[in-house]
Amino acid sequence: MSKATVSMEHLYRVFTQPENDDSTLAKIEKHLSNNLADFLSQHVVTKKSSLEDIEKDFSLPFIPEHPEFVSEHAEVLLDKLVSHSVNTSSPTFIGHMTSALPYFHLPLSKLLVGLNQNLVKIETSKAFTPLERQTLGMIHQLVYEQSSEFYHEYLHSANHSLGAFCSGGTVANITALWVARNHILKAADGFRGVGQDGLIAAYRHYDIQNLGIISSRRGHYSLGKAADLLGIGRRNHLTLPCPQQTLDPELVLTVGRRYIESGNKVLAIVGVAGTTETGHVDPLDELADVAKQLDCWFHVDGAWGGATLFSSTHRSILKGIEKADSVTIDAHKQMYVPMGAGMVLFKDPHHSSAVKQHAQYILRKGSKDLGSTTLEGSRNGMAMLVYSSLHILGRRGYQLLIDRSIELAGTFASLIEKHDEFELITAPKLSILTYRLRPSWLQDMSELPTAKQIAINELLNELTVTVQKQQREAGKSFVSRTRIEVEQHKNCVLTVFRVVLANPLTTEKDLENILEEQLEIANLQRNWRYLVEQNKNTLQLNANIDTVG
Amino acid sequence: MSKATVSMEHLYRVFTQPENDDSTLAKIEKHLSNNLADFLSQHVVTKKSSLEDIEKDFSLPFIPEHPEFVSEHAEVLLDKLVSHSVNTSSPTFIGHMTSALPYFHLPLSKLLVGLNQNLVKIETSKAFTPLERQTLGMIHQLVYEQSSEFYHEYLHSANHSLGAFCSGGTVANITALWVARNHILKAADGFRGVGQDGLIAAYRHYDIQNLGIISSRRGHYSLGKAADLLGIGRRNHLTLPCPQQTLDPELVLTVGRRYIESGNKVLAIVGVAGTTETGHVDPLDELADVAKQLDCWFHVDGAWGGATLFSSTHRSILKGIEKADSVTIDAHKQMYVPMGAGMVLFKDPHHSSAVKQHAQYILRKGSKDLGSTTLEGSRNGMAMLVYSSLHILGRRGYQLLIDRSIELAGTFASLIEKHDEFELITAPKLSILTYRLRPSWLQDMSELPTAKQIAINELLNELTVTVQKQQREAGKSFVSRTRIEVEQHKNCVLTVFRVVLANPLTTEKDLENILEEQLEIANLQRNWRYLVEQNKNTLQLNANIDTVG
Repeated sequence: MSKATVSMEHLYRVFTQPENDDSTLAKIEKHLSNNLADFLSQHVVTKKSSLEDIEKDFSLPFIPEHPEFVSEHAEVLLDKLVSHSVNTSSPTFIGHMTSALPYFHLPLSKLLVGLNQNLVKIETSKAFTPLERQTLGMIHQLVYEQSSEFYHEYLHSANHSLGAFCSGGTVANITALWVARNHILKAADGFRGVGQDGLIAAYRHYDIQNLGIISSRRGHYSLGKAADLLGIGRRNHLTLPCPQQTLDPELVLTVGRRYIESGNKVLAIVGVAGTTETGHVDPLDELADVAKQLDCWFHVDGAWGGATLFSSTHRSILKGIEKADSVTIDAHKQMYVPMGAGMVLFKDPHHSSAVKQHAQYILRKGSKDLGSTTLEGSRNGMAMLVYSSLHILGRRGYQLLIDRSIELAGTFASLIEKHDEFELITAPKLSILTYRLRPSWLQDMSELPTAKQIAINELLNELTVTVQKQQREAGKSFVSRTRIEVEQHKNCVLTVFRVVLANPLTTEKDLENILEEQLEIANLQRNWRYLVEQNKNTLQLNANIDTVG
Repeated sequence: MSKATVSMEHLYRVFTQPENDDSTLAKIEKHLSNNLADFLSQHVVTKKSSLEDIEKDFSLPFIPEHPEFVSEHAEVLLDKLVSHSVNTSSPTFIGHMTSALPYFHLPLSKLLVGLNQNLVKIETSKAFTPLERQTLGMIHQLVYEQSSEFYHEYLHSANHSLGAFCSGGTVANITALWVARNHILKAADGFRGVGQDGLIAAYRHYDIQNLGIISSRRGHYSLGKAADLLGIGRRNHLTLPCPQQTLDPELVLTVGRRYIESGNKVLAIVGVAGTTETGHVDPLDELADVAKQLDCWFHVDGAWGGATLFSSTHRSILKGIEKADSVTIDAHKQMYVPMGAGMVLFKDPHHSSAVKQHAQYILRKGSKDLGSTTLEGSRNGMAMLVYSSLHILGRRGYQLLIDRSIELAGTFASLIEKHDEFELITAPKLSILTYRLRPSWLQDMSELPTAKQIAINELLNELTVTVQKQQREAGKSFVSRTRIEVEQHKNCVLTVFRVVLANPLTTEKDLENILEEQLEIANLQRNWRYLVEQNKNTLQLNANIDTVG
C-alpha cells in the first residue's frame, strides 16, 4: 500500500479538505446516501466466513507508522470490515433488536458528528442541553403523564432532573439502581449518605445485613451487573422463577418479606416491560403495590417494550408503569434511532440529586450542566436524533410502527401454529416470540414417560442450535436462539428460536421463507429425520442422545 | 407547520427513500460535506443568547402527535439548534478538549450509522468485534510494548481481554477501578468474591475497615463518582494537595501507610497523565513503585495525555505508564475522533475476568462477545473510527499533531510571559496552560502584606470570571476557566484562564488576538482600571472587595 507523506501540510488537508467526488470514500458515501439497502446488499457478503478467518485480517497489534491515503483505507474497510458485517437492516434478519433505520438518520448523524458537541456541560453543548432536557421531558410525559405545570417547573430546573441520556439500557438500569441505592441509604443523623460514607457505614447506620434486588429470571443481565458494581453482590439479586414468563407478585411479596425478616432490606423490585427473551411484560401495576408493601424502589426496565406507550392500542399492556420510581427506555430499539441512545426517567425530579456531583472547572453548583447527575461524563448529542425522530415520525407514526410489529408477530405466531412441524413456545405479548421445530406426531408429549420427554427435548435442543447456526451461516436470514424454562413442558429448560418482529420492511412472505429454510436445514439432520419417522409407539430413545440415529 | 400524512406508505418511504437532492436536509448535508467550516460559520450564530432564551425553544413536554416533513424539521434544527450550538472546531475556541476533526470522520460516521452494528455480541457485529479487539491491541501495544507472541496469544482470545471500549474516560476509569476492586477482593476460601457476595462480606472476609483510592486533588471527578458507585464511599477517595500540580509519591506513601495502619486497604493509586485543569503529568514511574510498596492497584488516567505516547519526542514524559495495571485513553480527545470513544487497557489480559458475566441468549461461555467484560451493554462501532484514524494518520501523523500542540502551548506561554499585563500561572507540560490578567506593577506580589495579597487575588478572581464570560458571550473566541491552588501564591486558590492547545488549525495570530480581546474587555471593568492605576505605595485596598472603585 502506498503511503501519504507525513507533513503538517498533509495533516492540514486532512482536517480542512473533503475527499474529491470521484474518490472511493466519496463514492461509498454517495452509494449509502442514494440506496442504503443496495449498498449493503452489494457489500455485505453473505457467504460463510469463520470468525477465525476474519480475525486474521485484524491481528496486527502495531499502529501503522506511516499515514495511508483515505481512499485506499476506504477500500480496505469495504473489503475486510463491511463485507463481514451484519446486515442488521435486512427484513429477513429478525433475530435481534437492532433493526432498519429511517433514512433521515444518515444525514442527521453526519450533522451530529460535524457539530461534535459534548453534553457533559453547557460550555460545549449550549442548545443541545435544553434539547436533551426537552427530549427527556417528552419521554417522561409519555410515561408519567404529569401536568404542564409540573414540566414548567422541572424541565429546565438546575436543581432537578427528569432523567438521563446514556449509551444504552445497561447504563440506564445501573443509573436507576444507583439513584435508588443512594436515595434509600441517604444522609441522616450524622451519617452522610452511602455515596459519601460508603456501603459498610450505610449498612451499619441503617442496621441492615444486605440490600437486595428482586426480579424474575428473565430480568436483563445488566441487573446482575448493577448488583456487582454497586457493591451489593450478585447473590443479593434475587431472581425468581417464572415458568409463565412473568414475575409473580405474590411470590415477590413472600420472598421479599422473608428477605426482610432475615435482617435485610429490599432495595428494588425490577419489573420488565418486554423481556429480551420472550417480550413478556411483568404485571407492573401489581408489582408497584408490592413495592409499596415492601417499602422499596420500583424500577421498570422498558428498554425494549417502553416504546409500546406510543400506541394507544397497546399501551394498556404497560399499565402501572406510571407508578415506577424509574423507567429505562432505549431509543435505539423500538424507536428506530441509531445505536447508543438509552434513557432513564425518574418519576420524582428530586431523586437524581442522590448522585449529584460538582467539580471546579465544570458542573459548578447551580449550573445546568447535564454531567452533574449522569453516570457517564463526556457524551455526544444523540438526544438530537431522538428529538428529530419524535418530530419526524410523531406519536402517530410510532403508533403505526408499534401496532404493525405486534400484528406481524401475531401473523407469524399463526403461521407457526398452523405448521405441523413447528411448535410455538411463547406467544407474542409484544413483538417477540419463541418457537421450535417439533415433529407433528409429538404435538402432545405429555403422555410420554418423563425420561423420554427429557431425551426428546435434549435432541430438539441440539437440533435448534444446529439449524440456527446453519441458517445464520447461509446468510439469507437470521433468527436468534435462547434457553427458557417453559410451564407447558414441566418447567424444563428448552432451547428455542427467538424472533423479534421490529423491522417495518419484513413481510409475511419473508416469514414463510424463514420457516421453510429452517425445515430444509432440519431435513438434512439425521437426528431430525429419525425423530420424524417415529411415532409414539415405535420410539426407541435412550436418555443418552449420542446413541440416536 | 404542515403535517405529513400518517400511513404505512409514508413510513415505508421514510425507511427506504433518501431525501431529494434539492431538499433542505440534502442541502445541509452537501454544505457540511463540501465545507464544514463554512457551514458552521454561516449557521452557528455567534451573538449572545441567554440560555433562558434558548430554553424557550425547547420547553414543550409533549410528543408531537403528527409527523413533520423532514425538510421542515431540518429548517427548525438549523434555526433553533445548530445556530445555538458551540463551534467546537473553531481555531479560536481553545477552552475545551473537544477540537476540530479530520474530514474523513464525516463520511465514515455515516457508514457507521448505516451499518448500525451492536458490539455487545458477535451476532450483531461480526467483523467489528475482531476490529475492536485489534484496535485495543494496538493501543495496548502503544502503552505496554509487549511482544508479538503476547498479542498472538491474547488479542483474540475468548478468555482474555486487553481492555474495553466505552463511551468516555469516566466509564473507562470506573471500569478500571471496578476490575481492581473485584480483583483485590477476589474469591478465596469459601468467599465467592465481592462481585458475587458483596462488599460487606468482602470486608469481613479480608478483615478490612475500608478500601481507599489515592489521587491528587487534580484527579478527575470521575474518581469520586467511581468511589460512590462502587460502594467504597467518596470519603475513601483520598485527594492529596498538589501545590505543584502533581502528586507527591512520598506523600502518597505516608498517607497510604497511615491509612493501612488504621485497618484499611488501599485499593488503588491513580496517577493522572494530563490533568484536566493544567495538563500536568504525575510522576508515574515513582507512583508505580509506591503502589508496589502499598500492595495496591496502579491506574493511570491518561484520558487526555495518553496520546502523548504517539510522539517519540515527548513520550518520556509518561515514563512509568507501562507499569500501570490499567490505563484510560480517550480517542475523542487528542486522537481527534468524534465524541464517544473512550478506552481502558489492562496490562494483564486475565484481569478483566474479574467482572466477567454470562447470559443465556448472549455472552455464552467461550464466546468472543465483547459484552461479557464491559460495563456497558449494547454499544455502537466507534472502534472503527479509531481504527481508521490510526491508519489514515499513522503514528507519525499523530506525532506531528502532538508535537505541534505542545510547541504551540510553549509559544502561547511565551506570549503571556512577554506581556506586561498577563501572568502565566501554570506553564504547559503538555498542551494545556493557565494564566490570568494582572497589572504589570504587581509582578511580584510577595512583598505585599498577606491581607492585601488576598484582597488583590479576590479582585483578580472576579475579573477573570467576568472577562471569561464576556469573551465567551462575544462569540469570537473561547477560553475556559478553573480554580487551582498555586504554590507561588502561597497555595491560595486562584481563578485562572485555562486553554487547551489541541486544534491544529489554531495559529499564533489567533492567540495574540485572544489576549488582546481579553485586555480590551478588562479595560472596560472599573476594578481592573482601578488596580492598573495603583502601585505598591499608593494601593489602598480593603479585604472587602466590594468597597473598591
